[in-house]
Amino acid sequence: MVNEAWHDIYKQAKAWIYEAGEILKTSLAEQLDVQFKSSHDDLVTNMDKRIEQFFIERIHKHYPEHKIVSEEGFGDEVDKEHGTLWLIDPIDGTMNFVHQKRHFAVSIGIYEHGKGRIGLIYDVMADDLYHCLAGEGAYLNDTLLPSLEAVPLNESVICINTTWVNENRRIDPDIMRPIAAKCRGTRSYGSAAIELAYVATGILDAYFTMRLAPWDYGAGLILLNEVDGIATRADGSPIDLLKQNSILAGRPSVYHDLSKHIESEVAGGKHIDKS
Amino acid sequence: MVNEAWHDIYKQAKAWIYEAGEILKTSLAEQLDVQFKSSHDDLVTNMDKRIEQFFIERIHKHYPEHKIVSEEGFGDEVDKEHGTLWLIDPIDGTMNFVHQKRHFAVSIGIYEHGKGRIGLIYDVMADDLYHCLAGEGAYLNDTLLPSLEAVPLNESVICINTTWVNENRRIDPDIMRPIAAKCRGTRSYGSAAIELAYVATGILDAYFTMRLAPWDYGAGLILLNEVDGIATRADGSPIDLLKQNSILAGRPSVYHDLSKHIESEVAGGKHIDKS
Repeated sequence: MVNEAWHDIYKQAKAWIYEAGEILKTSLAEQLDVQFKSSHDDLVTNMDKRIEQFFIERIHKHYPEHKIVSEEGFGDEVDKEHGTLWLIDPIDGTMNFVHQKRHFAVSIGIYEHGKGRIGLIYDVMADDLYHCLAGEGAYLNDTLLPSLEAVPLNESVICINTTWVNENRRIDPDIMRPIAAKCRGTRSYGSAAIELAYVATGILDAYFTMRLAPWDYGAGLILLNEVDGIATRADGSPIDLLKQNSILAGRPSVYHDLSKHIESEVAGGKHIDKS
Repeated sequence: MVNEAWHDIYKQAKAWIYEAGEILKTSLAEQLDVQFKSSHDDLVTNMDKRIEQFFIERIHKHYPEHKIVSEEGFGDEVDKEHGTLWLIDPIDGTMNFVHQKRHFAVSIGIYEHGKGRIGLIYDVMADDLYHCLAGEGAYLNDTLLPSLEAVPLNESVICINTTWVNENRRIDPDIMRPIAAKCRGTRSYGSAAIELAYVATGILDAYFTMRLAPWDYGAGLILLNEVDGIATRADGSPIDLLKQNSILAGRPSVYHDLSKHIESEVAGGKHIDKS
C-alpha cells in the first residue's frame, strides 16, 4: 500500500478510537453486564462486545479486504505474512473498566504483511492517545515521543505484577525476584496496553509478563519500535504475532539487562515457559 | 474548635492545595534538582522542599497556633493528643513525579487532639481532589463517595507492591503470597496517598504496606474513615499517628479477611514486624 493510503487509515482509525472512547465513557453511567470467561479474573462485559462490533462494522465497510483479530472472539482466518491485519482490544483492562471506571484503553495495532504500520492506544478516562504511523514518529496526543535512552537498572521503574514473583506455573518466581528488588521500584496498572504505552513514553523503563494475547500487545509493539524500544518473548525469542506470548519489553539498556539476567537464570536450571 | 472554624480551614486548605498543584504542574517543564535521602529509591527534589515551604508559610501566618509535621524535615514538637496538627506530604510519590511526571499527589491531613478532621489528597495531573471534612461526607471532586460495601476477597483488587511478596526484612513474604494469588488482581501505583484515596473511592478494595510515614497516610486515614473503611497496622494494632507504621486498609469485609489471614499466619510462627 502506498503511504498516502496509510495516512488515510491512520486518520480514520484515530477518529474511530475517539468515537469508541466516547461510547465507553457514556456507558460508565449505565449498568454493566459482567460475565466471566476462563477464570474469576477474566472478565468480559457487554461493552467489550459492543465496541468490538463497532470496529468490525466500520472496518468491513471501509476496508473490506482487511482482516481482523479481536479479543471477544472475532477472528478472521489470518495468514500473518500476507495482507493487512487489525489486532483489536476493544477494552484492554476490562477488570479496571468494571472495578475502577478508569485505567482502561482501546488498543489497535495494524500490520501489513506482518510488519507494524499503525499503533493506537487510547487511555479513555485520561483522554491520552498514544499513536504512531510507523516511520513518522510516535506521539502522546500532540507531543512527539523521543527515542528511549539508556538508564541503569537500579534507576529503573519496572512494570511487573505480583503474579510473576509469586508461585505460578509459567516461570520460577526466583527468576524475577532479584530484579524486583534491585530496580528502583515496581508498578502494576492492570492494562497491558497502557503499560506498554508507558514504556514507549519512558514513564516505565520495562514491562514483563508471561502471558499476553495479540490484541493486548499488537499496538504497543508498534509504538515501542517507533521509539527504539525492544520487545521479545521472556526468553529472548521473537514474538509470534498470532499467538499468546510472554513479553519482555523495555528501553534497550534495561531490556538487555533483564534479558541477560533471565538467560543466565535459565542456563542455571530455572524454569520458564517457552511460549 | 467550633464547626464554622473547621469549614473555614477546609475551604482555605483546598484553595492552597490547588495552588500548590499549579506550581507543581508548571515545574514539570523545568529542570528538576533530584537528590537521594536514605537509599537509591528514596528521592527528594527541590520541588518537595518548595511546596513544603509554601504550606508552612501560609499555615504559620493564618493559624499560628497550629503544629506541622511534614516530609522534608519540618517537624514541630508535637503532642498528638493536644492541639491542631497538619500532616503534610508536599509530593507523595516523588519517584513518580521524577520518572513519570504524573501519578503524584499533595497530601494534607489535619487532626485535632488526635482526631482526624480534614483529609485532602490532590492527584495533580489527573486534577482529582479527594477531600473530606469529617462527619460531612467524603468527595472525589464534586461527587459524594458512598460508604464502602462488602466484596468477597476473590472479587477484590488489592494494592500491594512486589516488595511484600519478595524477600524483605519486615514481613515473611509467605504471609501475603496466598492473598496476592487469591484476590482478583493486584495493583501498585507508587503513591500511598493516591492508593489510600483509591481505597476510599472503592477503586481498590484494600491496601497493604509494611512501612509508611505519618505524612503519607495522614489524609488517607481520614478519608477512609469517612466512608466506613478500616485501617490498622498490619498486625491489627492501632496506628500511631506520629510514627512510621505498617498499614492494612480496606473496605471492612476485605480488611477483616486480610487481617484474620495475617493473624493466623503469625500465630503459625511467621514473622511480621511489630511496627
